[in-house]
Amino acid sequence: MPIKKIHVHIENARKKASIFHITQELWDAACLRHRTLARNLSVTIGWDGDMLETALKTAGMVIGVPPRRDDLRKRAPCLRWLHATSAGVDGLMPLDWLPRGVVFTNNRGAHGGKAEQYMRMALTMLNTRMPELIANQHRHHWQQLFSPDIAGKTTLIVGLGDLGEGAARAARQLGMKVIGVRRSARKSRFADSVHSYARLDALLPKADFLVLAVPLTAQTRNLLDRRRLDLLKPTAGVINIARAPVADYDALCDKLRRGELAGAVLDVVEPEPLPSGSPLWDTPNLVITPHISCDDGERYIDISLDLWFEDLARLLDGKPLKRRVNPKLGY
Amino acid sequence: MPIKKIHVHIENARKKASIFHITQELWDAACLRHRTLARNLSVTIGWDGDMLETALKTAGMVIGVPPRRDDLRKRAPCLRWLHATSAGVDGLMPLDWLPRGVVFTNNRGAHGGKAEQYMRMALTMLNTRMPELIANQHRHHWQQLFSPDIAGKTTLIVGLGDLGEGAARAARQLGMKVIGVRRSARKSRFADSVHSYARLDALLPKADFLVLAVPLTAQTRNLLDRRRLDLLKPTAGVINIARAPVADYDALCDKLRRGELAGAVLDVVEPEPLPSGSPLWDTPNLVITPHISCDDGERYIDISLDLWFEDLARLLDGKPLKRRVNPKLGY
Repeated sequence: MPIKKIHVHIENARKKASIFHITQELWDAACLRHRTLARNLSVTIGWDGDMLETALKTAGMVIGVPPRRDDLRKRAPCLRWLHATSAGVDGLMPLDWLPRGVVFTNNRGAHGGKAEQYMRMALTMLNTRMPELIANQHRHHWQQLFSPDIAGKTTLIVGLGDLGEGAARAARQLGMKVIGVRRSARKSRFADSVHSYARLDALLPKADFLVLAVPLTAQTRNLLDRRRLDLLKPTAGVINIARAPVADYDALCDKLRRGELAGAVLDVVEPEPLPSGSPLWDTPNLVITPHISCDDGERYIDISLDLWFEDLARLLDGKPLKRRVNPKLGY
Repeated sequence: MPIKKIHVHIENARKKASIFHITQELWDAACLRHRTLARNLSVTIGWDGDMLETALKTAGMVIGVPPRRDDLRKRAPCLRWLHATSAGVDGLMPLDWLPRGVVFTNNRGAHGGKAEQYMRMALTMLNTRMPELIANQHRHHWQQLFSPDIAGKTTLIVGLGDLGEGAARAARQLGMKVIGVRRSARKSRFADSVHSYARLDALLPKADFLVLAVPLTAQTRNLLDRRRLDLLKPTAGVINIARAPVADYDALCDKLRRGELAGAVLDVVEPEPLPSGSPLWDTPNLVITPHISCDDGERYIDISLDLWFEDLARLLDGKPLKRRVNPKLGY
């Protein structure tokens, strides 16, 4: 007797980079890796809404949040689970559009491995004075700027989720002291100590490197404001792999220009793409990377679908999903 | 009854960067760390030859090779041990100026820790496509260039001494496959396999990253010539922390300009300082650092003197010195 299959609709956006596209081929490969679970699924894969309204009529699960989210109760009467293919869901807040009873998850967990590698690079680049060396190369100027051992220095990481723990692993592996800050102040095996936000001001002066790895929420917006930037040592380096509005970039650039900070590596800016006229591009001792720090260029979708199947198994077992977004916290 | 002390003369050159200066303070600190050995030493510290000829008359040991090396037998009749404060002694070859019976050592072993950190940075920079991203930042151009996981890629390291083993540790820690090439083909615990130079041509096509970490000798000069460069994959990256003449930079730059290599990081050039008119500065996908990869900016002399005292203990015990330069091999 045939069991009624669950209809999974995948909604792709062509304007996103191709590494984020869930193609039939990648879906099929994931189904092979998760055979038993995949047996009860039937899939539709849409692009830029080309089949969205039809698919929503019967879809029990949707991967990829549609740009138009009004009236979802009526448009998607069978929907039980909606999954965002990004970890940051700040652009979808507040969740007033989400029908009651629909589980909403994000893609946390897909970014830690690449984040760890990026952080190893960014930390060693700042320690090696690469921002200065890059500028010197550009102006054809040979100057031997030596640098000390990175081991023994202190990295302060704000936010200890998937990205922050990746950063902590990197810093720990480089022999650094790792101090974490997170809402819960819950310990991490990759950090020497973890504190609540109430301790942030007292910790900033200790940092040789400050890493921002928090989700953007009402609480974290402008977290690293001008006053807090002034608490950092002038020899400190700042790395942001979170979201641009978490820090006051005007104040950060002022400090870099005045030599009151050693350097910064920013993987996130606002807006993205950064306009060619932005003063950020030419700020001294600032390295900009185009929001590429945490996404695996070859396996992003493989990693993401594996995490989705992990949560599917939990859903079918009646367990709480691991990546459920808390509407109050905003992540 | 007082024992006659051994006169150690330290010869400094002011034109060298200050991190290479052996001051009285750093010498005294080293003597405190090696109290028993230091008890029988008396030191003189000279600068740019200001006391050299007088000191040579009684010195049993000299740290720092004097620029004038003629007639040393007569000028330094008591000399038993001459120590170079650099690891590369290619500029001092051939050793026809060295009196018979004088032990000549170099500073190998002082560079591995920093080399490992630099290599972690250089490998992840190439994997993250930083040469392209740096160029894009410079022309205010936002383009999301994603990159794959570095783990599982292959690093081929030519030369497995202090620097090469540092590179191997870095690559291993990044989850890479490590293939080594060295004269002896002796195994290393940081490499998956080690081969002799006879295998180099067969190994070059396997490399995702090629690291040059050999001393400059008659055998290694122009080792990475145009023909061998052509054996590399077009997606490969090249890193040189050895000496510039080990590779044909004209051919390397041609390949970078034609996109036949993904990128390169060069810490050594010729001449140094690199003249501002050199075409190297603006070669696409090329990152130049000013010979700073392997020298600890804070502890270079501490590390070096600790190694010197280690060999002093061996000398006094009648054991062969660890850092003795082999005049035939040239390192």
